[in-house]
Amino acid sequence: MNSLNYVDSHLDDLVFDLQMLIRQPSVSAKNEGIEECAKLVQKILKKSGIHSEILRLKKNVAPIVYGEIKSKQNPNKTLMFYNHYDVQPAEPFDLWDYPPFSGTQKGNKIFGRGATDDKGELITRIKAVEASLKTTGDVPCNIKFVIEGEEETGSAHIEDYLKKFKKKFACDGVIWEFGYVDAKNRPIIGLGMKGLLFVELSVTESIRDAHSSLAVLINNPAWRLIDAIKTLRDSNGKILIKDWYKEVTPFSKKDLELIKKEPFDENVFKKEFGIKSFVGGKKGMDAKKAMVGGATCNIAGFVSGYTGDGAKTVLPGKSLVKIDFRLIPKMVPKKQITRLKNHLKSKGFSDVKIKVFHGEAAARTNSSDPFVNQVKMAADKSFGKSILNVSNAGTGPMYPFVDILKSPCISIGSTYMFSRIHSPNEFARVDLLKKTTKCMCLIMENFGKF
Amino acid sequence: MNSLNYVDSHLDDLVFDLQMLIRQPSVSAKNEGIEECAKLVQKILKKSGIHSEILRLKKNVAPIVYGEIKSKQNPNKTLMFYNHYDVQPAEPFDLWDYPPFSGTQKGNKIFGRGATDDKGELITRIKAVEASLKTTGDVPCNIKFVIEGEEETGSAHIEDYLKKFKKKFACDGVIWEFGYVDAKNRPIIGLGMKGLLFVELSVTESIRDAHSSLAVLINNPAWRLIDAIKTLRDSNGKILIKDWYKEVTPFSKKDLELIKKEPFDENVFKKEFGIKSFVGGKKGMDAKKAMVGGATCNIAGFVSGYTGDGAKTVLPGKSLVKIDFRLIPKMVPKKQITRLKNHLKSKGFSDVKIKVFHGEAAARTNSSDPFVNQVKMAADKSFGKSILNVSNAGTGPMYPFVDILKSPCISIGSTYMFSRIHSPNEFARVDLLKKTTKCMCLIMENFGKF
Repeated sequence: MNSLNYVDSHLDDLVFDLQMLIRQPSVSAKNEGIEECAKLVQKILKKSGIHSEILRLKKNVAPIVYGEIKSKQNPNKTLMFYNHYDVQPAEPFDLWDYPPFSGTQKGNKIFGRGATDDKGELITRIKAVEASLKTTGDVPCNIKFVIEGEEETGSAHIEDYLKKFKKKFACDGVIWEFGYVDAKNRPIIGLGMKGLLFVELSVTESIRDAHSSLAVLINNPAWRLIDAIKTLRDSNGKILIKDWYKEVTPFSKKDLELIKKEPFDENVFKKEFGIKSFVGGKKGMDAKKAMVGGATCNIAGFVSGYTGDGAKTVLPGKSLVKIDFRLIPKMVPKKQITRLKNHLKSKGFSDVKIKVFHGEAAARTNSSDPFVNQVKMAADKSFGKSILNVSNAGTGPMYPFVDILKSPCISIGSTYMFSRIHSPNEFARVDLLKKTTKCMCLIMENFGKF
Repeated sequence: MNSLNYVDSHLDDLVFDLQMLIRQPSVSAKNEGIEECAKLVQKILKKSGIHSEILRLKKNVAPIVYGEIKSKQNPNKTLMFYNHYDVQPAEPFDLWDYPPFSGTQKGNKIFGRGATDDKGELITRIKAVEASLKTTGDVPCNIKFVIEGEEETGSAHIEDYLKKFKKKFACDGVIWEFGYVDAKNRPIIGLGMKGLLFVELSVTESIRDAHSSLAVLINNPAWRLIDAIKTLRDSNGKILIKDWYKEVTPFSKKDLELIKKEPFDENVFKKEFGIKSFVGGKKGMDAKKAMVGGATCNIAGFVSGYTGDGAKTVLPGKSLVKIDFRLIPKMVPKKQITRLKNHLKSKGFSDVKIKVFHGEAAARTNSSDPFVNQVKMAADKSFGKSILNVSNAGTGPMYPFVDILKSPCISIGSTYMFSRIHSPNEFARVDLLKKTTKCMCLIMENFGKF
């Protein structure tokens, strides 16, 4: 039996372990179940024959679950799997068809927070290594697992972990924590990630809420905050902060070629979200360029005053907005924070308080690296086809990997494009979990060979 | 013993009954405890010797508690006390120092939702009638109580009740449900109330929340809603909706004289709310004119996306804002709603959905009515001083009383200006409850005499 057959015949085990992982909530934003989940991941690694240990940085920082298995046949080349065991909050709970931490299976779908992002992806990597070990008694190259617990709150400590364990983590290539699969079941091989700057802006006008009849005299912090954030962006999505795009370089010819080749079905996308048009009326190549290289200023949350049912005539004392900026290559988070602060000051909004949750730079891997072709060959064989993507629209802490480990990073995985990650009714598709596990087997083989 | 002595010697009973009322939650916005509270009010009325009955309009409408006592000495003149037994929601619960429905007494203060607004005020009226009955066996004029249960959600059915029970409710003067007492313990005799238009505006961009990386293409409903509401008002508070102020007449000379006489300590007010300046930089006479006759467009609530702790990179599908407009005399709610709708349409925001919670016109009583002087004399005697106010900054359903019952309406009561009504830690002051009860005794006497 080769490893691919093993994956077929042990699919039930994979589903079982994934459900077990989903049933252990691990919401990093609320510090809910983090330690418990790390221990569970370690247990699953060991069960698959992978040596594992819990790495710690300091108190109140989620541990990293580290896994390692040395290759007898090829001890000089190391492939790393980077994943995370934490998940996004499951709110709003009432929009879920099944309990978010139930792992309910309905046909080809397994529902639950983290079903795809990232517990589903993690299980494919583990099961691929298991398949190789169980069928050959070896792995085609050294394997390292770095499984962190703070990805969904911005991987605040991954850089420190990479620095502290630089030697332990040394490797020649990294398979990223996820990879999208499009509506036509084509895996998207991602060579980059955008960066992210998450901030909270708040205005306090009075020391307490007041009766709204006093709005004739007491300033309303929601109006004030709206005045402030309206200056950040025009209605086409362009960010109006001075020098925001200053260091950004245009797409190279090679980038543009890849973007042009990349399929993107606008209608399927629009139908999925029930929308009629895109931001700023973008279409075709412009829409595709925005996905790969567009910067955003997104309101992730806004709250002020009474938000329950019915009417309450209140003048809130405070208002708060959570904004995430997607950053593109060459944007330096620290610089952008300074620009945001200067912008608000220069526009007369010194009263707006800024709390920075985290900043993370964008990263891109060179498309001519041999690792790219090894992954592409594996994906083509496992899925029958694949797509090369210059950069994902999302964010992951790829920059410190590229910067500290000096390794090419590629994202490839089982994340169906419409699997509702970060939303109610997130699900994983069993067919994609299987194909991805096989793809990981083939990547290890290709990587060991060349 | 005269009625004023009776009030002094029975103050503990008043406090006890008020605490009992506070301990029965009656949140009309959530339909919580309404029927139970109506029954409790009826019980308290009966205990004080007042005939009482529950009046109903139709299903799902809060009942009115009606009370009546005929005068033997003066059966030809009728004074009505209008009050309400419902309260505002108590949220945010975590900002209360004592449980909001505990009625905890600390020295001169009784804390609780409704302690002042309006359970405290109601109890002063009831106890004044009791004092008269217990000391003279009669009341100086006929007394009617109309105690409704939907004031805090906008008195949606008071007009229907007044029409249905027009004969039963016939009277020659109305004492309003509350009256403010300023920082120097001067009761403010109010001759008018502003109107109110409460609306909810919402934008839906996509059928579900999405990962915020998709903000490059999917429009954000919070940005859209902000774009829309930014057109409603300038940063000085002026409403920009076409013809919003069209029918409004300027203050009369008499109005301006009264406004000028009215004391207003800007510094005390600012200190209480921890603010440094007023909307649009208003000062002195301009600030006073705004309180009496300013129209507002206030954000009472704004919610979109993730509003919990920490970071969540989500692109919300929907956003919602609750806005209350204070209306001034001559503004017709229905007309203003049409103007708001036309405004949004003409500015290109046809996608913004409007839900109207209710509209209520402003009302003012003529300051030369003899009833005004009767109340002023009573207030001066009981409190040692008083202030005449052309219009309160707040709203109450005074318009249908003036319009249907054709009776002058005057607000006078125990509501300490900084008693945090509608906010956490609402409280009533026992000294003011006592003075107000005595004032009500004197108003009945003056009203019966002349």
